[in-house]
Amino acid sequence: MTLRTHARFVTLEGGEGAGKSTVLSALRAAFERAGIQAVYTREPGGTPLAEQIRGLMLDTHHEPASPEAELLLAFAARAQHVRATILPALERGEWVVSDRFTDASYAYQGAGRGLDAQFIGELERRVVGIRPALTLLLDVPVEIGLQRMRGRGAADRIESERNDFFERVRQGYRDRAVAEPERFELIDASQPADTVAAQAVARVHALIAATSSAEATR
Amino acid sequence: MTLRTHARFVTLEGGEGAGKSTVLSALRAAFERAGIQAVYTREPGGTPLAEQIRGLMLDTHHEPASPEAELLLAFAARAQHVRATILPALERGEWVVSDRFTDASYAYQGAGRGLDAQFIGELERRVVGIRPALTLLLDVPVEIGLQRMRGRGAADRIESERNDFFERVRQGYRDRAVAEPERFELIDASQPADTVAAQAVARVHALIAATSSAEATR
Repeated sequence: MTLRTHARFVTLEGGEGAGKSTVLSALRAAFERAGIQAVYTREPGGTPLAEQIRGLMLDTHHEPASPEAELLLAFAARAQHVRATILPALERGEWVVSDRFTDASYAYQGAGRGLDAQFIGELERRVVGIRPALTLLLDVPVEIGLQRMRGRGAADRIESERNDFFERVRQGYRDRAVAEPERFELIDASQPADTVAAQAVARVHALIAATSSAEATR
Repeated sequence: MTLRTHARFVTLEGGEGAGKSTVLSALRAAFERAGIQAVYTREPGGTPLAEQIRGLMLDTHHEPASPEAELLLAFAARAQHVRATILPALERGEWVVSDRFTDASYAYQGAGRGLDAQFIGELERRVVGIRPALTLLLDVPVEIGLQRMRGRGAADRIESERNDFFERVRQGYRDRAVAEPERFELIDASQPADTVAAQAVARVHALIAATSSAEATR
């Protein structure tokens, strides 16, 4: 199974407190204004089973998952998400916007927990098989992100990690953006939320225009 | 990570209605009579988190898991089981008896669902890393096994599969026993339950004797 890039598939990535929710609302409004049908989904999650897997990953009532178990839970949820939600929407001709996708496993379980990126790549090829045409990476210094989080109440398991873990996650994301500059749009998310959202929307508009014009000339 | 065989690790495998419960009770009684400390565990499961993963795999309230998601859930649970339950017990010098282990993934998700055995092998090397010294395979014709099951009430997701699935699972198990005759003890489980249990106990006694004598001559 080789990785296939889908033109109408957009993912949003970023660490804690990067402002993903504000950007997601802005993207949804932009697609609606443009009259474009899109599915908005998230990871881990996006199907009833995958949401239950998310619950196991984030709750703190059982023993902590080993890094290996966490990685496989993430990919089990993703395998289900791709087959039950993402591919059916793309096949209907709709756009798909996912709050996190495979890059999050490279950042959190790879760079963050120290698991081998080559093994993660093998899982991606074997059970995911698709990549987005555009990944918006909201990049923010760890200190600023965590400060924003603290206003929000109880931390789940992953949010309770220590700062050096989040530094590795941030660097993991940045390395991926450098390695694939055509797919990634790195946005400085320490800017005001409106500025960040406007940059994200502008980039998605450019993708929509490029996709329509590619389809018009077929 | 290469696979390491543990002398004090025994697994029990077999399809539906093969009589694993009776054999497990007989093994437990045999270890107790011999004054040997052992941990009795099962898959999927064997830790609080892994038991919750088991629940997701077997319950029928959400959409069916894709074969890929089912495989990764099984290995997520197994990764946890090995690290939180099996290896700590072996390191304390205890024996471990597990009702199913990695062979079940080769049989159910590999032979049964048609997933690539090479990928399953990659998962085994990457996240499991250990094999039992002895695997007791209770082999019974599918018709007989299913007849025994029908007496037991509601079927879970996997038990509701069709006969040809169970035929492939049985063949997958038998092929593994042929490929590794030193590790596998194939027992004809269409015999009376007492006969099956006696054969299993005799084989475990032989392993205990061999392990003690290997340790005595060190």
